[in-house]
Amino acid sequence: MLTPRVPHVLYGGDYNPEQWPPDVWLEDAQLMQEAGVNLVTVGVFSWARIEPIPGTYDFDWMDRVLELLHAHGVFVDLATATASPPPWLARRHPETLPVTMDGVVLWPGARQHYCPSSPIYRGAAAELVERLAERYSAHPALAMWHVNNEYGCHVPACYCDQSARAFREWLKARYRTLEALNEAWGTTFWSQIYSDWDEINPPRRAPYLVNPSQELDFRRFSSDALLECFEAEQAILKQHTPDIPVTTNFMGFFKPCDYWKWASREDVVSHDSYPDPSDPEAPMDAAMSFDLMRSLAQGRSWLLMEQASSYVNWRAQNVPKRPGQMRLWSYQAVARGADGVMFFQWRASRAGAEKFHSALVPHGPSQDSRVWGEARDLGRELKTLDSVLDTRVQASVAVVFDWANWWALEFPPKPSADLRMMDQLRAYYRPLFQANISVDFVRPQDDLSDYRLVIIPNLYLVAGHVPDRFERFVSSGGTLVMGFFSGIADERDHVWPGGYPAPFRRLLGIRIDEFEALARGQELEVDFGGGERGGSDMWADPIELEGAEALATYAGGPLRGRPALTRNRLGKGTAYYVGTHLKPGAMNTFLARILDEQALRPPLDTPTGVEVVQRSAGAQSYVFILNHSEDPVEVKLYGPLEDLLTQKQVPKILSLEPYGLAILHE
Amino acid sequence: MLTPRVPHVLYGGDYNPEQWPPDVWLEDAQLMQEAGVNLVTVGVFSWARIEPIPGTYDFDWMDRVLELLHAHGVFVDLATATASPPPWLARRHPETLPVTMDGVVLWPGARQHYCPSSPIYRGAAAELVERLAERYSAHPALAMWHVNNEYGCHVPACYCDQSARAFREWLKARYRTLEALNEAWGTTFWSQIYSDWDEINPPRRAPYLVNPSQELDFRRFSSDALLECFEAEQAILKQHTPDIPVTTNFMGFFKPCDYWKWASREDVVSHDSYPDPSDPEAPMDAAMSFDLMRSLAQGRSWLLMEQASSYVNWRAQNVPKRPGQMRLWSYQAVARGADGVMFFQWRASRAGAEKFHSALVPHGPSQDSRVWGEARDLGRELKTLDSVLDTRVQASVAVVFDWANWWALEFPPKPSADLRMMDQLRAYYRPLFQANISVDFVRPQDDLSDYRLVIIPNLYLVAGHVPDRFERFVSSGGTLVMGFFSGIADERDHVWPGGYPAPFRRLLGIRIDEFEALARGQELEVDFGGGERGGSDMWADPIELEGAEALATYAGGPLRGRPALTRNRLGKGTAYYVGTHLKPGAMNTFLARILDEQALRPPLDTPTGVEVVQRSAGAQSYVFILNHSEDPVEVKLYGPLEDLLTQKQVPKILSLEPYGLAILHE
Amino acid sequence: MLTPRVPHVLYGGDYNPEQWPPDVWLEDAQLMQEAGVNLVTVGVFSWARIEPIPGTYDFDWMDRVLELLHAHGVFVDLATATASPPPWLARRHPETLPVTMDGVVLWPGARQHYCPSSPIYRGAAAELVERLAERYSAHPALAMWHVNNEYGCHVPACYCDQSARAFREWLKARYRTLEALNEAWGTTFWSQIYSDWDEINPPRRAPYLVNPSQELDFRRFSSDALLECFEAEQAILKQHTPDIPVTTNFMGFFKPCDYWKWASREDVVSHDSYPDPSDPEAPMDAAMSFDLMRSLAQGRSWLLMEQASSYVNWRAQNVPKRPGQMRLWSYQAVARGADGVMFFQWRASRAGAEKFHSALVPHGPSQDSRVWGEARDLGRELKTLDSVLDTRVQASVAVVFDWANWWALEFPPKPSADLRMMDQLRAYYRPLFQANISVDFVRPQDDLSDYRLVIIPNLYLVAGHVPDRFERFVSSGGTLVMGFFSGIADERDHVWPGGYPAPFRRLLGIRIDEFEALARGQELEVDFGGGERGGSDMWADPIELEGAEALATYAGGPLRGRPALTRNRLGKGTAYYVGTHLKPGAMNTFLARILDEQALRPPLDTPTGVEVVQRSAGAQSYVFILNHSEDPVEVKLYGPLEDLLTQKQVPKILSLEPYGLAILHE
Repeated sequence: MLTPRVPHVLYGGDYNPEQWPPDVWLEDAQLMQEAGVNLVTVGVFSWARIEPIPGTYDFDWMDRVLELLHAHGVFVDLATATASPPPWLARRHPETLPVTMDGVVLWPGARQHYCPSSPIYRGAAAELVERLAERYSAHPALAMWHVNNEYGCHVPACYCDQSARAFREWLKARYRTLEALNEAWGTTFWSQIYSDWDEINPPRRAPYLVNPSQELDFRRFSSDALLECFEAEQAILKQHTPDIPVTTNFMGFFKPCDYWKWASREDVVSHDSYPDPSDPEAPMDAAMSFDLMRSLAQGRSWLLMEQASSYVNWRAQNVPKRPGQMRLWSYQAVARGADGVMFFQWRASRAGAEKFHSALVPHGPSQDSRVWGEARDLGRELKTLDSVLDTRVQASVAVVFDWANWWALEFPPKPSADLRMMDQLRAYYRPLFQANISVDFVRPQDDLSDYRLVIIPNLYLVAGHVPDRFERFVSSGGTLVMGFFSGIADERDHVWPGGYPAPFRRLLGIRIDEFEALARGQELEVDFGGGERGGSDMWADPIELEGAEALATYAGGPLRGRPALTRNRLGKGTAYYVGTHLKPGAMNTFLARILDEQALRPPLDTPTGVEVVQRSAGAQSYVFILNHSEDPVEVKLYGPLEDLLTQKQVPKILSLEPYGLAILHE
Repeated sequence: MLTPRVPHVLYGGDYNPEQWPPDVWLEDAQLMQEAGVNLVTVGVFSWARIEPIPGTYDFDWMDRVLELLHAHGVFVDLATATASPPPWLARRHPETLPVTMDGVVLWPGARQHYCPSSPIYRGAAAELVERLAERYSAHPALAMWHVNNEYGCHVPACYCDQSARAFREWLKARYRTLEALNEAWGTTFWSQIYSDWDEINPPRRAPYLVNPSQELDFRRFSSDALLECFEAEQAILKQHTPDIPVTTNFMGFFKPCDYWKWASREDVVSHDSYPDPSDPEAPMDAAMSFDLMRSLAQGRSWLLMEQASSYVNWRAQNVPKRPGQMRLWSYQAVARGADGVMFFQWRASRAGAEKFHSALVPHGPSQDSRVWGEARDLGRELKTLDSVLDTRVQASVAVVFDWANWWALEFPPKPSADLRMMDQLRAYYRPLFQANISVDFVRPQDDLSDYRLVIIPNLYLVAGHVPDRFERFVSSGGTLVMGFFSGIADERDHVWPGGYPAPFRRLLGIRIDEFEALARGQELEVDFGGGERGGSDMWADPIELEGAEALATYAGGPLRGRPALTRNRLGKGTAYYVGTHLKPGAMNTFLARILDEQALRPPLDTPTGVEVVQRSAGAQSYVFILNHSEDPVEVKLYGPLEDLLTQKQVPKILSLEPYGLAILHE
Repeated sequence: MLTPRVPHVLYGGDYNPEQWPPDVWLEDAQLMQEAGVNLVTVGVFSWARIEPIPGTYDFDWMDRVLELLHAHGVFVDLATATASPPPWLARRHPETLPVTMDGVVLWPGARQHYCPSSPIYRGAAAELVERLAERYSAHPALAMWHVNNEYGCHVPACYCDQSARAFREWLKARYRTLEALNEAWGTTFWSQIYSDWDEINPPRRAPYLVNPSQELDFRRFSSDALLECFEAEQAILKQHTPDIPVTTNFMGFFKPCDYWKWASREDVVSHDSYPDPSDPEAPMDAAMSFDLMRSLAQGRSWLLMEQASSYVNWRAQNVPKRPGQMRLWSYQAVARGADGVMFFQWRASRAGAEKFHSALVPHGPSQDSRVWGEARDLGRELKTLDSVLDTRVQASVAVVFDWANWWALEFPPKPSADLRMMDQLRAYYRPLFQANISVDFVRPQDDLSDYRLVIIPNLYLVAGHVPDRFERFVSSGGTLVMGFFSGIADERDHVWPGGYPAPFRRLLGIRIDEFEALARGQELEVDFGGGERGGSDMWADPIELEGAEALATYAGGPLRGRPALTRNRLGKGTAYYVGTHLKPGAMNTFLARILDEQALRPPLDTPTGVEVVQRSAGAQSYVFILNHSEDPVEVKLYGPLEDLLTQKQVPKILSLEPYGLAILHE
């Protein structure tokens, strides 16, 4: 379970009592009780309320709130309140404000207006956390610590002078000598050789393309600078409460922060999930980020820290969730390993920039509110799920995903600017999601022996020790699929010499001598043989076979007849290479063959739009069946099972209403 | 009449003699005489010519110009010349330069390069105005004062440090205490509580969405800061010439300045009108802004201060006015209450940024110029219109329009970014314009008793005392139409609690619990009953009826069968609510029914593209009939009338050539 | 020949040995020898390697490189290395960094991070060049000096305070008095009269449109500021090696630099050519820039300094050259006057921002590389071309092209923002290129007597002495074609009074009183008589005939029946005016008639896609026949000729493979 103090599925949301007079607090606590809320996050944006004047603290209001919550059986995920410094900090220390690459200062008025490398900001934050921890470490309502909030979401990097100083220190720790740094950054190119550490700056606005190795290290540094902020706060909390779990909320595939590294430093992985109800692929994208969270947690349970009860407020068009959709999507998270379902936020704000974000308690009377009704019912329903706690999703398929690769892949200039990491990831994930095949995400250097199929959508950037691991995996019988433009550069973003993809030539049995980006709009036809054809675009490697065989060839265009996809037998296994950007139909054709060969099958066969995920532990097994379509569906079962939610036997046919779901177990 | 010194329809334009050698001045005066010009605006951009060195003034050239004009029967609308400070001001006082929200300084080289809150700019401007007033207050050619020029058109707001100081003073005057400000701005949200006035700044670039209450007050302040500049100059002028009317030129629906407030401070409302000849809705947009001007003037006559004789120079494509179109559009202004028709500018500049803006006197020989010919003929023709002076347009329909609402409505983030004030305004104005129903604009707090129909396209922001007034209007027999997303927030931009639209629930007999923004491209069908259907998009409130009845329902989609438009009887009147963004056809269907019920009819029935407006006073009545189409049309009259322009009787059928017009009276 | 030390067609590329360890240098030299390389550009980005610490120089490595090259028969185009200052310069002198019009500093991290007007940058550069010249002036491998690199490509202008000071000095030299400057800039407009030189600044970000005369002079100044940098370095080099030619690489129609002026100051015109292989008009655009280079060189040979062996890296999609296309395009340059074919770069970088730019020696094994194979074969083949050296292309058609006109034409605001110089240039060049008619570019003030047809696509800006020259050309029997919106403004960007186009009214026999920009999407039909019609858009002058006759009229629209194209007989010649933007078909119709009348014919009739150009000297004549299509073609010859490349007789039919070519001579 996520916190020892609440041995249930967690249910609740962000609670900001400072926005309301005390008489509302009691109503809140009563409504929470009514809805079965057992955990709320308090204080995320309370710094200015707690410390209105530097060094003067007011905790009385928070004491009262926590007492009231506790009296109503609600535990607290207590925030460190450092996400939005009070106005006095910027006025007294304008150098704490972040600065963009163009030199534009980001002022107070919104939130997150701090330079992550500012010693003054860090000092003020540490002092505040110390006070909070002192006061509440022994509070019986305290169940979790919530450090800061959505690190980096608005200010992923700062380019100010103190960030420059911190960057230099980070570089000194990484490279020790200027010679090593000059070598790593390839500074002989364009006359960039540094003769003094103080000459080095963040990649500020420059006349043209910035050194990509400098940029790459700056991304690493910027993720680390934020992580240092987290760790500094966590260290204080751990001194006071070594047994209370500490988390900070992640944001799925969030490019600025290397969550692999972050997740290894925190107790609980938590996640903010805001799919767009108007996007038909929202369930797929949500599933992908949920799988990432579970993978970051090394397979352990994670916490859905934030989602919207209906619409958000920050899209151009903020479409509501349809009736039932909020419940369905909440269970989707649970299906993929979440042991808690929480919301932003408990009560809709009357003022400020987020007042049109949906909440559990709306602006109008809650008794009239569809959304409140669904939320209350969900909270009650989740009480029946304790047996699911700590069960795990098992996956035989791993998808390799790496932040440094993401960063490096998308720096300009590349053969094609259309090559984006998330597009490639989705291209491979889509058919697996549609086929209800569970997927874990792994790092390139991770142990792969538990998997039967490893997919590497792209690994442009690859360290020297990785290829051996992949070869060992395949030689031992594994199946590996690698996308184009992988194995190009080392971890410094220097091209691997020796014919592309040099580190993987033996693994794949191919060689590529030049890149072939396609013009925008140009499409190629790929012939899989046996009359099966599909489309591709954006990229087409002119592959030379060096042991591999062609699995599909181009039916026309400049590479007519040449291999588009290849297969290489290595030891007991097989390595596939995908030399072009397959369109969804073609990707499905390709991956379906592999799934078939590997006999990788979902727990159940279901109609289109129905998601199936299994959580299990020992003999316990729960199959979540989720109907994402707006029509009722029927699912054939192998035999009668019980639905955990209704506690009723389900005969051979499971009928699900629109956005309906069932959790079957034997 | 607009100025006691010129008891005629005013005719003329901006005259910039400083761009020309003196020998051209005489030619100008003679050409003016030829064209019947009786008023020109002199000196708008003359500061550097008048005061080439700080404190040294050269008025000789202006003396000569005014003398020459006077000798040719041309009066002067004398500008205060403060719209573009000389280069020496910025060099000596760089802090007078405006600064953008990103901190970018706006330098001299164009115009309007001053911070409105700069004490140095204001001081230098006051000194200049004092000198001008001293010198010319007794000049016989002086007929009007023209303060500055198009306030705010390029620099609607300044974010510099002295603007910050002025903003704080403005806030102190508004809120007295920091506690009151913190409450009004909802600063408990995102930890923004201010503990010192000096912590407050303009809403400069921030990491994310700025506090909307701060932004709203900054818009109010910025409009007021410019208005203070106007009032300071006006006060000086009034000391010298209490009887000479003072104006500053407005720009129609100009978002940065609350013209309701501005108009109440000046003697004459004047307007710059630049519709795009390539836009088929140009006549409608022009009519709408003319109606606004007349409403700003409380029904009194106003002055068309600037229009183009043909093309402007600042669009991507500057299409000319077709032959006759300049005359037609000039009369359109007169029809809607203008007692003067003026142009930018008299003579086309040879140099500078506006040299390709059309003028009355072109670059080439004027005798060859179509445009000059039309302008000369128009000037002569207008001499016949003295009897129209001071007659008024009468309207039974009022449209509520409010600047603070415009500002607040369009701050992100809202349920839909597609909801724009001007679109909503046009949606309701369009069918009224097409039906030739005259419309006044009013403020929410204005007396509505003179109107039969009041339309509120949107009133997102509404002060607490307004709903009562609307209820009284309806109860007394009035008909009111209100668009969606009205009644949401108070004047601080805090959501009204109690179910949307809380302040109007009783008036409208409805309740809405959640917003429903539609995805871009999604369309709904609205069923008006009786086989009449129409389209809508962008928004669809899920309306609960609380006394109202459904006037139309959704024929499909997520809200199928639920009310789209409602009607509520209250006392002797009726209040309608429009819960979706009706497309033009559907809006026409809806409003046509109301016009029909209310027996609101135009003075004449006319073919498409023919505009009809009536000006009257006592028994006097003039019906302007304007053919905006490029084809000849025929209009049936109720009986024979005289055309004021031709002084001829018109039989039962009035024939108008393309872009032709008539002014009929009995 | 381009350099006396290498009396052959030059072949080679940019060579950056500092990016590689010494053992690669030997391999490079051997590969160069294998490919027939005879010239490489060394040191373009070596400043930081040569002068790692201010005042400390390391030339040893360069000594070794030059020695090695010389030993392998490779000469050196030695770069002055000033294009990218080392990081220490910016750290010690941050004021050397360039600043944008918004005040954003451009930092090191890329290249070209220097203010061209910085005395410190210029001083440091001069010191470096002095050292280089001292050390290598007597080196036997030295064949050419290469000053800086692609001047202005990333920083065409700087807006910092020292640029402001330099701009003022430049203006003082141009105008002598402030009165003259005020007159030239029309500063009476918008109150911009300067009373002190120090009030003048570059056209930094302003509230609205900047004074176009100020902007125009700033463009002139910015081109000159860069040229001063070039000339300062050249002067040092000339002191040491008066006989070694000096060049700097141009970039075709590069707007920021007035290459007419630049070319007159250097010994050899060199050019960087990067057409997009995915653009069907790439061969035309390349031809146009090659013709410009030859014209800049006053007909003498020029040097193709840079091209890509296949793809570049800076487009969104970097499509490779097809097999044969690199060779074909190399010969296209030679056909149009190049006596050398060079590449960026010799060996593909492993690190940095350009590592995915194709090179001669690829990342992988060169023996496997198609690109290397083609490059090696081309180098060998070019050995057979010595007889072509110094032969010249003869043209009977001149196209007028002027930088100041380009600048002024494209400042907003104009009647239409769609009027762009390069579009107009292409509109006229396209049919000439397709007809294989050779074209020279000339300045407006150049002697035209050698040409039969002079085309002026646009000459908005024209100095007072030019019209006479055009009239003399026509009167003497020449044919002249002028596009619309010519003859509008003088060299200060003041409108010429007297009816458009005032300076050319006598030449053209027409008058225009107003502009007619067309709305985006509006098309007109032009009737050439005899059933021939074509389309036009964007612009349509309402032309009054004053001696000219209508050659074509509008078939509809607002100008129906009025002249679209006119012809005026003047003396023995004819002047045509094109009053609208003809679409390609209509332009072809029009120009084909003129070519026909003038009996202007290509050396050979060829199928579509085949380019023909003739180089000759005395009795020597070489006809280059280039097949740009991806299909084989056949070309009929007048009689048997020899192909210089194969040394074989070609019978009456020449067969060319896809992307094939021949060089025929008698």
